[in-house]
Amino acid sequence: MSTYEAFILAVKDIHRLQALQGHLGWDRETIMPEKGAAARADMLSWLAKEAHCRLVDKDLGLMLDELEPDAGLDADQQANVREMRRAHDKARKLPEQFVADYARSKSEAMMAWQEARAASDFSMFEPHLENLIAMTKEKITYIGGEGTPYDALLDEFEVGMKVSDYDPLFEGLRQRLVPLLDQIIEAQSSNPDPEWPGDLHFSIDSQTAFCTKVSEAMGFDFSAGRMDKSTHPFSAGLWPGDTRFTTRYDPSEPFSCLYGVMHETGHALYEQGLDPDHSYTPRGAAVSLGVHESQSRFWENQIGRTTSFWKVALPWFSEHFPDAPVWDAGTLNRMANTVSTGFVRVEADEVTYNLHVMLRYEIEKKLFNGDLAVKDLPNAWNTMFHEWFGVEVPNDRLGCLQDIHWSMGAFGYFPTYTLGNLYAAQLLETMEEELGDIDTIVESGDWSPLLNWLRPKIHAQGSKMTPAQLIESATGTPPSPEPFLRYVEAKYGRLYGL
Amino acid sequence: MSTYEAFILAVKDIHRLQALQGHLGWDRETIMPEKGAAARADMLSWLAKEAHCRLVDKDLGLMLDELEPDAGLDADQQANVREMRRAHDKARKLPEQFVADYARSKSEAMMAWQEARAASDFSMFEPHLENLIAMTKEKITYIGGEGTPYDALLDEFEVGMKVSDYDPLFEGLRQRLVPLLDQIIEAQSSNPDPEWPGDLHFSIDSQTAFCTKVSEAMGFDFSAGRMDKSTHPFSAGLWPGDTRFTTRYDPSEPFSCLYGVMHETGHALYEQGLDPDHSYTPRGAAVSLGVHESQSRFWENQIGRTTSFWKVALPWFSEHFPDAPVWDAGTLNRMANTVSTGFVRVEADEVTYNLHVMLRYEIEKKLFNGDLAVKDLPNAWNTMFHEWFGVEVPNDRLGCLQDIHWSMGAFGYFPTYTLGNLYAAQLLETMEEELGDIDTIVESGDWSPLLNWLRPKIHAQGSKMTPAQLIESATGTPPSPEPFLRYVEAKYGRLYGL
Repeated sequence: MSTYEAFILAVKDIHRLQALQGHLGWDRETIMPEKGAAARADMLSWLAKEAHCRLVDKDLGLMLDELEPDAGLDADQQANVREMRRAHDKARKLPEQFVADYARSKSEAMMAWQEARAASDFSMFEPHLENLIAMTKEKITYIGGEGTPYDALLDEFEVGMKVSDYDPLFEGLRQRLVPLLDQIIEAQSSNPDPEWPGDLHFSIDSQTAFCTKVSEAMGFDFSAGRMDKSTHPFSAGLWPGDTRFTTRYDPSEPFSCLYGVMHETGHALYEQGLDPDHSYTPRGAAVSLGVHESQSRFWENQIGRTTSFWKVALPWFSEHFPDAPVWDAGTLNRMANTVSTGFVRVEADEVTYNLHVMLRYEIEKKLFNGDLAVKDLPNAWNTMFHEWFGVEVPNDRLGCLQDIHWSMGAFGYFPTYTLGNLYAAQLLETMEEELGDIDTIVESGDWSPLLNWLRPKIHAQGSKMTPAQLIESATGTPPSPEPFLRYVEAKYGRLYGL
Repeated sequence: MSTYEAFILAVKDIHRLQALQGHLGWDRETIMPEKGAAARADMLSWLAKEAHCRLVDKDLGLMLDELEPDAGLDADQQANVREMRRAHDKARKLPEQFVADYARSKSEAMMAWQEARAASDFSMFEPHLENLIAMTKEKITYIGGEGTPYDALLDEFEVGMKVSDYDPLFEGLRQRLVPLLDQIIEAQSSNPDPEWPGDLHFSIDSQTAFCTKVSEAMGFDFSAGRMDKSTHPFSAGLWPGDTRFTTRYDPSEPFSCLYGVMHETGHALYEQGLDPDHSYTPRGAAVSLGVHESQSRFWENQIGRTTSFWKVALPWFSEHFPDAPVWDAGTLNRMANTVSTGFVRVEADEVTYNLHVMLRYEIEKKLFNGDLAVKDLPNAWNTMFHEWFGVEVPNDRLGCLQDIHWSMGAFGYFPTYTLGNLYAAQLLETMEEELGDIDTIVESGDWSPLLNWLRPKIHAQGSKMTPAQLIESATGTPPSPEPFLRYVEAKYGRLYGL
């Protein structure tokens, strides 16, 4: 067996253990009985420890030392060596016991978050969050590195991105988005968004059938995956032939479920499009959260929130919701694009969405680089929300308890959502140059050209390149916020006649 | 760390890997998308290999050598040493590659069996079964041991039981059961079983609600477990706080689902009653298939197929099936105990059930100790069925494709079902001596005295004793077929006025 072959066997074992964690995580969020929580936390902790032991194994380090200078490796093999080197070096810095304890704390915190969110009571989650943040600070001291403590967390979710990158990026976006929001709010006074009737009922069965139809039309293969229900929608790649995503239901309106499904299907299509010849290796895995999010936002917003989409989806809508008012495609699209200063990030329009992300970014920065205490978090959240959005947050459920991320110890994750929006817009511009008018394709009802464009350029590439290289290879230019700003200004200009 | 502590850490790792296999197995049978099959087989094979590597580890053998003569170990610790010694020695005989290949073959065979069963086409399953039997024969050569090849398989599922034990036991049962069956069939000509109306419909939702009520009344904790649907009902212990069982539905009648649920709940109650202080060790695990089956058969037959049960369940039945005919408890009980020479083991009455088991036993004996070829299996099955039951098997689905066991490589498993029937009757006799009239308890609607009797005497004991010791410790006498024969003769004597 060559060194590279032995290396890949070790790499696959690590990724199998991580895939098992993914599977048990999916199960926990969807169907696990409540008293299974403690043993589940224990099992996830054990799997994390097992994966960690193998990742930090000295023999893996020796193989990496031997393979790194090996000029005989092809680009795929080099990618695996590069990514495993980074993961190995970082993991070597974390004590084994810490990794196990951290995994267990995250698992317990997530259960507490679910209960706290249901009760809209931050105090139920507070001690768990306190503990997770303390442990995350401990983790930062192990990881070390240059820059601020928060930089270490940002780098984990999108390699190479730091506070000094995000601060000016976010400032630049804010300078164009806030005036746009002001213009829209002004326009709404003379051109109001359609009112949503208060007394409608959309059964869960009908929403499931409608959303399944849309997900299938996007190209999701239901014989190689599932759609289920969970508190917080998510997508889990798991392993070849088995990609699962979740949604949630609001019986009073179908958009929350629909766009949740389009979003998660976007993620899931990426997973279904990874190269199975490279399963259980970095080369066969998604490259970054930012790129992942570009896939979800592409389908959710750039395809799903268009009149062209609604022209195709209207007959399905009428079939599954025969009691709904008779709307035309344009009206449905206006309702799906209503700009409002609502409280919930995942239901925000494309203008305010990035402001939601920035709020979390600023709070995380204060938690890790500043002196915000966990007990003061709800107050900090609500104060900042009032400043930025002009409205009072009525309760923790609609405020700082709305997102699952902190209960998973995912600090530094939120900014990748904005990167996803930027990448998605950049991909759309190039796609349109190459395929022609996207609206025409969407209106045709056959969306396969879109998926077939993304498959070789993004999905099948896995982690062959870095995220920035991948975007440049697919679009011809390095990542930039300009396509997104062009896109969002044009779109909302049209919608509100600005 | 003491040697025993180090030993237990190693033991728990092995059992965690086995628990993960159990979880992925449950998922595969209930909710896995069809294209996930190949990767699932691969993952199960990997987990089996990992568990095997740890089980055969030389260090584990050295620890066992040191612990076996240690007089300082208590009975719980001795049980763990005893059981791990047996598992270790046996596993040492199996090559690692064989274990992985065997697990993969079983996983693939199970998918093929499901398709073959759906299509009622043995030829779709035949090559897989051929392969599994060849591999099982290879396994027997590795295991070695005294006695016939089939003895090695029987011992795997109930330690210490051999062809020379089963042959006379089955012959003795047959000598009393066949005349009883003849008497019943004669009695049926003058006292026919109630006819089942052909045009009834029992919705899946109503069956689920009714059966959930029964399962809860038995004591199953749904906050620490689940009930789902699968092709073949089964129960999976998984781990503390998470015990899952499945059922299946026939919309034309509710008994198949009900007694499936009572059977699997019996298994699941055993799992929920294991001592969590001994999780992931033999001491905290069920002792044998025979004892497991005694728990399922106890609830399914000795409690569930009684007029006392139906007196309690009748209001639930009427609530959930308001359109069903108005039956009284006695009629429902007669219908639930109809003796017929039907084709399906899991739906057989208590008189013919053991004949179904014996048929499989004879076929397995021929496959491993004789010269029955796999291609001749359907014919052998159908011929023997005609001889014993007097009816022609119409197709493979109702014949040799009905059971999942062979697709799992579980040859030698079936006889433990009969042991379960014998143990259950023996437990019932002792329970009645200690608690008083069981019918009175069942009619009260509070069945907790029954579960509370089984919990300390059977469930919480785990594998502290051997199966035979456990039955003797609970009942005061060694395992015997007499209580079962007394029970079945009395019960059917009453039902048919013999």
